[in-house]
Amino acid sequence: METMRWESDTLVLLDQTRLPLELKYIYCRDHHQVAEAIRNLRVRGAPAIGVAAAYGLVLGVDAARCSTRREFLERAREVAGELALTRPTAVNLSWALRRMLDRLENAPESDPGALRGILLAEAHAIFVEDLETNRAIGRFGQELIPSGARILTHCNAGALATAGYGTALGVVRAATAAGKKVSVFASETRPLLQGARLTTWEMLQEKIPVTLIADNMAASLMARGGVDLVIVGADRIAANGDVANKIGTYGLAVLAEAHGLPFYVAAPLSTVDFSLAEGGQIPIEERDPAEVTHLAGRSVAPPGVRVWNPAFDVTPARLVTAVITERGVAYPPYGESLARLCK
Amino acid sequence: METMRWESDTLVLLDQTRLPLELKYIYCRDHHQVAEAIRNLRVRGAPAIGVAAAYGLVLGVDAARCSTRREFLERAREVAGELALTRPTAVNLSWALRRMLDRLENAPESDPGALRGILLAEAHAIFVEDLETNRAIGRFGQELIPSGARILTHCNAGALATAGYGTALGVVRAATAAGKKVSVFASETRPLLQGARLTTWEMLQEKIPVTLIADNMAASLMARGGVDLVIVGADRIAANGDVANKIGTYGLAVLAEAHGLPFYVAAPLSTVDFSLAEGGQIPIEERDPAEVTHLAGRSVAPPGVRVWNPAFDVTPARLVTAVITERGVAYPPYGESLARLCK
Repeated sequence: METMRWESDTLVLLDQTRLPLELKYIYCRDHHQVAEAIRNLRVRGAPAIGVAAAYGLVLGVDAARCSTRREFLERAREVAGELALTRPTAVNLSWALRRMLDRLENAPESDPGALRGILLAEAHAIFVEDLETNRAIGRFGQELIPSGARILTHCNAGALATAGYGTALGVVRAATAAGKKVSVFASETRPLLQGARLTTWEMLQEKIPVTLIADNMAASLMARGGVDLVIVGADRIAANGDVANKIGTYGLAVLAEAHGLPFYVAAPLSTVDFSLAEGGQIPIEERDPAEVTHLAGRSVAPPGVRVWNPAFDVTPARLVTAVITERGVAYPPYGESLARLCK
Repeated sequence: METMRWESDTLVLLDQTRLPLELKYIYCRDHHQVAEAIRNLRVRGAPAIGVAAAYGLVLGVDAARCSTRREFLERAREVAGELALTRPTAVNLSWALRRMLDRLENAPESDPGALRGILLAEAHAIFVEDLETNRAIGRFGQELIPSGARILTHCNAGALATAGYGTALGVVRAATAAGKKVSVFASETRPLLQGARLTTWEMLQEKIPVTLIADNMAASLMARGGVDLVIVGADRIAANGDVANKIGTYGLAVLAEAHGLPFYVAAPLSTVDFSLAEGGQIPIEERDPAEVTHLAGRSVAPPGVRVWNPAFDVTPARLVTAVITERGVAYPPYGESLARLCK
């Protein structure tokens, strides 16, 4: 299973909206297709949409239609702007696009064909580095996982949310590889059920024991002593350690604290947005009410009912036991520890 | 809209599994049909299944086939036993059946036809008293509701969960009738979506402002200051005030405490089980994994994935601000206050 791959000048994406029932790939040959795929969650997860957007930028700039370096750069900025608008919360998207444009602006080449080659190489670098990053997160993170741990995770911060391996699930994979015999509880993650559809599927493929629960069962599971720790990914982390992640994460963090359980966040340092002092400044995407009112195309609520459908929430740093990054584990106060890791 | 009615020796039940898209009634002419309707949640809500079971007992005892009082009583006990087994958690079910059998055992009549008349009268009494009880709960409860309050409720503790009017939603109705301009947030209540399907529908019918959220959005809503109080129903309350209610209730109670919000339980005194010292003794029903893995008949999880699907959880008394009953509001310590109200 591959979340995405580059093949014959095409970005091949696993359509995650079809999982787990269908394993279907889509073939993106221009950046509009990539933007559509990001917007409609065919590819999702903060690191994965960063990588996909990087490739999307390559697809969006047709070197043959640009006769000068200036034209090429203008077109690249235009395409990057369009891709950056697809989703607002995950910072990895704008981080990857910024990195691509920076590389381009610093390249001395003037030939559009050569510039395109530089862009593609940078996209490949982002892809490969994301894989390496996840494996490093796994190595650091698994040291925090006791043998036999029963791990609750939310949404999907796995191979499907990244170039591969995963952040939160990367830690689970690494702990398993270290022989720790961990097991996973996957909360289904309404409205789009990434936990039910994607996390369980990844765990079954790896033969890591997994149990599916509805989101509202986590508290009762903790009260029964059924969970040893919580680990989730992140879409954006403010400079002070406040974490934006899939809606429902904050509730789990409050519950973890109430039950005396560690609450870990696993994320690459590219997820940290040092330009934001605290989590209240992170833009939170609100999505279509139909995601809540319809299931499998069928209405489950009275027509016209008002809906609030935020895709993310913010967990304050004080509820986060540690942030696991590719350069090591950050502990509070995060203002210092995250900055130190980024040096 | 009627949750149920007795008509021509038939118990007519609104099939709540079809709501809100279809308004379909089912006609129960024997107790097997009533048992099926309770088991499959066509009628649900602790008070409602108590009333339905009482009528089910009437339907199950065919006076014409009993020639003696003894035969009639034996048959009644047999039918009551069968109905009592349909669902384990709500105590109102066994409470109503016990009350029916007590009435029968204390009746001096020997004619089976007369005994059946006594049973039917008792079922009618339970029905009418439930309505009165709910209105009284509403009156006491609405005094706790500030004008303009934004009220979060879980599952459906409304007219549909009772003979009519509702417990938690009865309080909302009474506050509205008192001119308090309250609004409601309904958490959808996975897996069977009673909040999305039933609570929103009741509120829309009453023109009480209602907003639907997924269960995992409640924490974020509270953090934003969007909720003033939480009010839920109950399926069984232990003598010490521990409350069994729909799965997800306990999590909301923890969240309410973390955000400094009152957490109210509205329930008739018939929900209090004085035979159980504390909530850990309340049997918690676990239901079919397919309720979690399938939505609208379609699979949303990999085949064969393990599922934990408890239908209820237990909220410890220390998280309950007050229990609103038909005889007044009980405050901690509940061991004393609930016992006092029952005297």
